[in-house]
Amino acid sequence: MSSEFGKNVKVSVFGQSHSAGIGAVINGIPAGIKIDMDKVAAFMALRAPGKNKLSTARKEADLPEVLSGILDGVTTGAPICAIIRNNDTRSKDYANIIDIPRPGHSDFSAYVRYGGNNDVRGGGHFSGRLTAPLCFAGAICLQILESKGIYVGAHIQSVGKVEDQRFDDIRPTVEGLTGPMWKAFPVIDDEAGAKMQEEILAASADLDSIGGTIECVIAGVEPGFGEHMADGVENRMAAAIFGIPAVKGIEFGSGFAGSRLRGSQNNDPFCIEDGKIRTTTNNHGGILGGITSGMPIRFAVAMKPTPSISKPQQSVSLSKMEPAVLEVKGRHDPCIVHRAVPVVAAVAAMTMLDIMYDDVR
Amino acid sequence: MSSEFGKNVKVSVFGQSHSAGIGAVINGIPAGIKIDMDKVAAFMALRAPGKNKLSTARKEADLPEVLSGILDGVTTGAPICAIIRNNDTRSKDYANIIDIPRPGHSDFSAYVRYGGNNDVRGGGHFSGRLTAPLCFAGAICLQILESKGIYVGAHIQSVGKVEDQRFDDIRPTVEGLTGPMWKAFPVIDDEAGAKMQEEILAASADLDSIGGTIECVIAGVEPGFGEHMADGVENRMAAAIFGIPAVKGIEFGSGFAGSRLRGSQNNDPFCIEDGKIRTTTNNHGGILGGITSGMPIRFAVAMKPTPSISKPQQSVSLSKMEPAVLEVKGRHDPCIVHRAVPVVAAVAAMTMLDIMYDDVR
Amino acid sequence: MSSEFGKNVKVSVFGQSHSAGIGAVINGIPAGIKIDMDKVAAFMALRAPGKNKLSTARKEADLPEVLSGILDGVTTGAPICAIIRNNDTRSKDYANIIDIPRPGHSDFSAYVRYGGNNDVRGGGHFSGRLTAPLCFAGAICLQILESKGIYVGAHIQSVGKVEDQRFDDIRPTVEGLTGPMWKAFPVIDDEAGAKMQEEILAASADLDSIGGTIECVIAGVEPGFGEHMADGVENRMAAAIFGIPAVKGIEFGSGFAGSRLRGSQNNDPFCIEDGKIRTTTNNHGGILGGITSGMPIRFAVAMKPTPSISKPQQSVSLSKMEPAVLEVKGRHDPCIVHRAVPVVAAVAAMTMLDIMYDDVR
Amino acid sequence: MSSEFGKNVKVSVFGQSHSAGIGAVINGIPAGIKIDMDKVAAFMALRAPGKNKLSTARKEADLPEVLSGILDGVTTGAPICAIIRNNDTRSKDYANIIDIPRPGHSDFSAYVRYGGNNDVRGGGHFSGRLTAPLCFAGAICLQILESKGIYVGAHIQSVGKVEDQRFDDIRPTVEGLTGPMWKAFPVIDDEAGAKMQEEILAASADLDSIGGTIECVIAGVEPGFGEHMADGVENRMAAAIFGIPAVKGIEFGSGFAGSRLRGSQNNDPFCIEDGKIRTTTNNHGGILGGITSGMPIRFAVAMKPTPSISKPQQSVSLSKMEPAVLEVKGRHDPCIVHRAVPVVAAVAAMTMLDIMYDDVR
Repeated sequence: MSSEFGKNVKVSVFGQSHSAGIGAVINGIPAGIKIDMDKVAAFMALRAPGKNKLSTARKEADLPEVLSGILDGVTTGAPICAIIRNNDTRSKDYANIIDIPRPGHSDFSAYVRYGGNNDVRGGGHFSGRLTAPLCFAGAICLQILESKGIYVGAHIQSVGKVEDQRFDDIRPTVEGLTGPMWKAFPVIDDEAGAKMQEEILAASADLDSIGGTIECVIAGVEPGFGEHMADGVENRMAAAIFGIPAVKGIEFGSGFAGSRLRGSQNNDPFCIEDGKIRTTTNNHGGILGGITSGMPIRFAVAMKPTPSISKPQQSVSLSKMEPAVLEVKGRHDPCIVHRAVPVVAAVAAMTMLDIMYDDVR
Repeated sequence: MSSEFGKNVKVSVFGQSHSAGIGAVINGIPAGIKIDMDKVAAFMALRAPGKNKLSTARKEADLPEVLSGILDGVTTGAPICAIIRNNDTRSKDYANIIDIPRPGHSDFSAYVRYGGNNDVRGGGHFSGRLTAPLCFAGAICLQILESKGIYVGAHIQSVGKVEDQRFDDIRPTVEGLTGPMWKAFPVIDDEAGAKMQEEILAASADLDSIGGTIECVIAGVEPGFGEHMADGVENRMAAAIFGIPAVKGIEFGSGFAGSRLRGSQNNDPFCIEDGKIRTTTNNHGGILGGITSGMPIRFAVAMKPTPSISKPQQSVSLSKMEPAVLEVKGRHDPCIVHRAVPVVAAVAAMTMLDIMYDDVR
Repeated sequence: MSSEFGKNVKVSVFGQSHSAGIGAVINGIPAGIKIDMDKVAAFMALRAPGKNKLSTARKEADLPEVLSGILDGVTTGAPICAIIRNNDTRSKDYANIIDIPRPGHSDFSAYVRYGGNNDVRGGGHFSGRLTAPLCFAGAICLQILESKGIYVGAHIQSVGKVEDQRFDDIRPTVEGLTGPMWKAFPVIDDEAGAKMQEEILAASADLDSIGGTIECVIAGVEPGFGEHMADGVENRMAAAIFGIPAVKGIEFGSGFAGSRLRGSQNNDPFCIEDGKIRTTTNNHGGILGGITSGMPIRFAVAMKPTPSISKPQQSVSLSKMEPAVLEVKGRHDPCIVHRAVPVVAAVAAMTMLDIMYDDVR
Repeated sequence: MSSEFGKNVKVSVFGQSHSAGIGAVINGIPAGIKIDMDKVAAFMALRAPGKNKLSTARKEADLPEVLSGILDGVTTGAPICAIIRNNDTRSKDYANIIDIPRPGHSDFSAYVRYGGNNDVRGGGHFSGRLTAPLCFAGAICLQILESKGIYVGAHIQSVGKVEDQRFDDIRPTVEGLTGPMWKAFPVIDDEAGAKMQEEILAASADLDSIGGTIECVIAGVEPGFGEHMADGVENRMAAAIFGIPAVKGIEFGSGFAGSRLRGSQNNDPFCIEDGKIRTTTNNHGGILGGITSGMPIRFAVAMKPTPSISKPQQSVSLSKMEPAVLEVKGRHDPCIVHRAVPVVAAVAAMTMLDIMYDDVR
């Protein structure tokens, strides 16, 4: 019933694509934590639009104004609120979608849910733009995690059928995990990245779009976080990740591929290394019984192709209740996978910290 | 921090595999609903163990005793509590796993989480046996959904590499959806089912286990349920489904396969049929922007192979902190996919009803 | 762990007295509700400071800017965010209270809680100023309640030992309930009000402050809202009302006075009037077993005297850990009871609507 | 929407007065805590009925059976479930109250809320009997608090107009706090206690009942627990305490009396004692700004006279919608204040521990 993530670290996101502003209120960040706002801004720039032809032409500075909760760069314990003004809005582009819902988009379901009162301009509250406040919250959480020796990395695992290499989820390095995310095109293997960009541009040239997957690894989490059954790491991570627009699937460790294997293939043998218990493989993705095992947490996310395409599409007129052909105007991303990479990392960081703050030991 | 599912329909599960009893407390079921307890018992029998060689030899009547909340077969509005006694427990079988954690199981992570105090007998609170109370709660929710014309079906989609047919997720019939679940081996295509059973028996003969996937479809839900961002249908369904032991992935609609497509392929054109707005295909799995579209809700779940296998496996001794070979004794399922089918349907029903009860319209 | 009120109507308050801004995010208001923003502003003006000698000299326009969730005066279903800029801040006045905590204020407990990182300027997040966003949220809820025929009234019941008349809690009129709140000094009996103002001015002249009580009645609620045990109307109303700074007590119906009576005196006989079941007296304050009875809901709130007084007070120096005398500077209210009247009504409205939205009947 | 208390320590209560059983599921108790079950039983005996003429003649052993969560006397981290069978039920006594609601009781409001489907036998889920599971949960929490040097005491503060002495809320001793609760009649001053018992017996002889107040003090809590605004100690304590049947008011520290004072009278000067910051008086009841100050937490609770009295009372017939005189049969307590004393202590302990477990410092 709310756009609120988390139990301990609560991130409440507000705003619509073309409202006066968007933002987030974050409750649960302890007092006394120094936040490097330059790093926050740099992280948020990773998802900012308007950089090249791979993304929408909309330009937004996306610089958050912190209204509360941080004083002289240090958290106060009070709720943190940051807002981002919406400036470059061209609402006229969206006038037609009130009547003819875009296939694959929330137009129709939201129309029913909100009785036609939802703000449809630019996707309203469903817009990918709402991931900017998530990145703000994630950037803060990433800094807190780093201070605990925990690093979160994400990269494009695939665009269409083009696959990137996978993260090392046994002994990842900090650079190996976080490096790809900071590239202009966030992949491990730049050759694969070049092919992906070709795919995206080809889709764009066809007035079409293309989907992909994102891999995320969280390294450095001690064993013993998370809970049984309904409050496990997978439950809570999945619940949060599906809050990112266009996500349609998630798998942990070997996931769907592992479901085709035998136990003797999929089980990860335990071993001892430097006095710590580890596993020699990581098909469990760092989570056993909902609880962290101490191995890197690994999951992959499926993102559908951007539903907003310029190709004519079959739809219906809600007012006339008759078939109608839709040609979507406006500025759209032919692929949102690369821009979603920092968002996945942000939500992963928020959720990991949220889980770690369960702990009263 | 709790084994509790849901926001409106809250299902709190308790018990360990070898404790005096297990059960569930259900809050949020409205008063005045007639519950057919025979149907509840019949549904619960679908996951009961001990039927054949495909499952553990443990025998449990699994008949719940309702302590509260239902009077003369009608809900009172007060919390419903049902308990199931644990009778056929052979705790001695598990004495060794205190020291040598089973690969792929929660033994090690739970050992750290609970400081070695968790009940390890039979998997304790992590046992698949805890899905029996989920089935009790689900059976009640299924009846309420049926009274609203909503039907939930689940079947094995694959065991190892053997695939069943898929549900019709455009115009499913009640029989088509619910029929497979009530078969002795819950598949649509019995020939595929026969091959799956061969796979399971082969794994069992090798002292091994095998994984699989389950498909679930919920038909009859009106458009407009669920919420934006963190409270969407996918968020909440995923959060609940990962509460089922051994689940490692979930995808809605075309899911991971859809992430390889273009927008023009994956978008589902709208059409009008009998005065209702529908889509001609269902790659969105009945959910757009987190909100139901009125099309059948479709998702698939990846289940890892049962981690408990009798083959010797490499592990470590927690007390000696040295390598150790583990030979798991006890009675185990070579495959839990078929037994998990009603559990997936139960959790899907609980969660769907929970979402529908958000609604204050 | 958060400054968030409510379950269905969630009001998340943020900001500090001297931060860039304060505000609230409101989730759970259904789409399609017309909001009269002039009425919102008029209601918020009731608690605005700077009107006369009875209150602080601080002047704030307190006009909220709505960033999201309302489009063309109608709710969209997306989170509503409103912010209020802090303009007339004089932070220098508060420099000393970092070291010497004010008796009766949160300075010391917050210092420990937040490790000295909390924003102490003007009371920070604990400032009475944070009740402005509550009034914004309440003003919206009051309009929704009015559209259902539900009216909320509040007035000063006492200041020091001076008592106002009590509301009619059997057959209140709309004017009787809401009239007093809109007076410059919110009492039923203006003569009593004049004496109260004398008390306040006398306390002010003595560099002191004075406490009081507020009575609130909610009329027009149908029987059958609320829940047994932990989710009753009293539980939720009390939990919210204690979120108003300086509240130290709450009683429903005959409350503490009723605890001195016998059952035959305190029980309210049932009767039938105009085909409806009512009670002839209302010692139960409209709530029986946590559930509304259909009679007006009545409660009274105890507010302590403003802890910030200009008289020298005994305190300690946190840095030197030795006794210290504190003379509080800054602009303070000699009594906050009259300004808290609309706040109590606002929180009552938020909570009543929250409770009513439980209902899935 | 549920009979569930708490956020971290979640206590979910189920059962009806005459159902097969009642009980509680407790989530959030850490693993590895030794529980003395004899002490639990002794504490629960404090509220058990049937001891003398001051209470109902109903006899219940009230011995809980622990189904899960505790193994060999030590918590496992899994949910703790305890059930109590209902044996001595005489449901026939209650047949008439289906049609004629008892004044002051939940019969009518629950009838509307649950559409007449609620279990009315013995008060159903609203029965005071449901406080037995609360005492079970409280007994566990009391033991955990004790291991941290925290003691909870409660006693009758008044019955009718007869007042007991008050706890020392500045420097209470363990014996001073906990002694009264363990007496047959829980008061500090036995002479006052004798007069109270006379009042109760007099009310009983008149086929009537009488109300009273309970004082509770929690000593030993360090400063810095609780949160600002909606999550303060007062908010959460009040929310939980109103879950006890018949509670109609709560006040912290000087409460309603303090609202008649000036700030210079009600403010508590800070001082230093043994290197710790304390206050010389305790009108704030150990809570400032919602956060503990390190001083004993003090609150008082108003309990209405038992609504079930045998005197004829004016009511209505729900079926005939006409006036009806009710003569309540069954076994009732002429006063429930003395039996509620351990319940208040139990809920205070549950809630205090719940608040302390917020803390991630």
